[in-house]
Amino acid sequence: MVGWQRQAAGTSIQGLLEDALRELDGGAVTVIGAGRTDAGVHALGQVAGFSLDRAILPEALLRAVNARLPPAVRVVTAEEAPPRFHARFDAHAKTYRYRIWNGDVMSPFERLYAWHVGGPLDVDAMANAARLVQGRHDFAAFQAAGSETRTSEREVFSSRILKLSTAEDRQGTDRGELIHYEISGDGFLRHMVRAIVGTLIEIGRGRRSAESIAGTIRSRDRGAAGPTAPAEGLFLLAVSYEAPLAAER
Amino acid sequence: MVGWQRQAAGTSIQGLLEDALRELDGGAVTVIGAGRTDAGVHALGQVAGFSLDRAILPEALLRAVNARLPPAVRVVTAEEAPPRFHARFDAHAKTYRYRIWNGDVMSPFERLYAWHVGGPLDVDAMANAARLVQGRHDFAAFQAAGSETRTSEREVFSSRILKLSTAEDRQGTDRGELIHYEISGDGFLRHMVRAIVGTLIEIGRGRRSAESIAGTIRSRDRGAAGPTAPAEGLFLLAVSYEAPLAAER
Repeated sequence: MVGWQRQAAGTSIQGLLEDALRELDGGAVTVIGAGRTDAGVHALGQVAGFSLDRAILPEALLRAVNARLPPAVRVVTAEEAPPRFHARFDAHAKTYRYRIWNGDVMSPFERLYAWHVGGPLDVDAMANAARLVQGRHDFAAFQAAGSETRTSEREVFSSRILKLSTAEDRQGTDRGELIHYEISGDGFLRHMVRAIVGTLIEIGRGRRSAESIAGTIRSRDRGAAGPTAPAEGLFLLAVSYEAPLAAER
Repeated sequence: MVGWQRQAAGTSIQGLLEDALRELDGGAVTVIGAGRTDAGVHALGQVAGFSLDRAILPEALLRAVNARLPPAVRVVTAEEAPPRFHARFDAHAKTYRYRIWNGDVMSPFERLYAWHVGGPLDVDAMANAARLVQGRHDFAAFQAAGSETRTSEREVFSSRILKLSTAEDRQGTDRGELIHYEISGDGFLRHMVRAIVGTLIEIGRGRRSAESIAGTIRSRDRGAAGPTAPAEGLFLLAVSYEAPLAAER
């Protein structure tokens, strides 16, 4: 899987959806996703919009599309949107979760769904630094090199670290600790969440102070931030819109 | 992966461990597992015993073995056992968990780790039936056809249904419900847990009463019980021994 976006080679989520919808609608269908997740990144709450020529009720569409998708890709809900709805431009907020597995031995069940970080982590320092990410900032220091965007200013509504007990997770063991990082904002630069997580881990390891992240943001220099955390730990959790999709706007 | 046990064809967990240990020890090593899990079944708390000619400290052994295993297989702890320790015969109790995903659309993240059961389930009836499984019984009604065992009598110490909120799970959605079935006993017949789960699901669907499971047990007839639930939902959670492994016995 090459990620969300259709590419010259490889299977993409967008491509799988467009192929399934073409079969149902008869003609070519273009699907627009709210977030263009990279290969290895997971999506629990991706939103995608498209127009069909045939009239199909959402509930019937949901079943028909899922029947044509591989089990690794599922549409969980379907609803009618206003004619000019654009899944990406109309998105008001996005929330991402990043999962970190902190333990000596990586759980085989987590290897595709979390970043394995061994050794002690100062989770309180990470939590303090996470809070300093909140607010409207120029996040150029956390943008993938070579990105072209009109502006690298974004507003982060919330940014926090959650330490979970693994008892509630699938493992049911105490041999590793799961740390969640959750961030909501009005938009994200390419690799922004993963670069923030890479920086938070350096803070957790004591290589940087929690307070230093404010200066890292101000530097607008990608070289000043930490490494990009692996794609596997990242989940697009939710995309929200100002009004319910089906409402008149 | 063909499951725990080494077979003529296919990759087994036992085979992977024996190959890794042979590399470390120089000669052939036989590994005995507490539970011979089938292909598709997961293990969080499998215990395996073996003898080496070389003296290697457990901590060093753990690292060396994991470095030689694929990421899908991990040794989580290693300790020295008494000379006559037998991982299977000395096991005092085993605990299994079976995971059921109850929702219209199967989560892609659960498809290898849970059984997808759609439609409404009477979880209270399932919980009542689960309790009736406790005690010493002849479990022939839940044994895979063609099994040869000295006796099909086993003692079940505990048997219960747990309904979880998915909020605590990886999904963080409310679009499906995770139901756990946990069973502990002094030993299990081949496919016993999966046949009990298949029967509990028929009870949850209202096709059988909760009380009927007592008669199913008494029948000692495999045809009287429900179908065998898929391997994917089953986890060997823990194996316990009368005394700590390293203690003198």
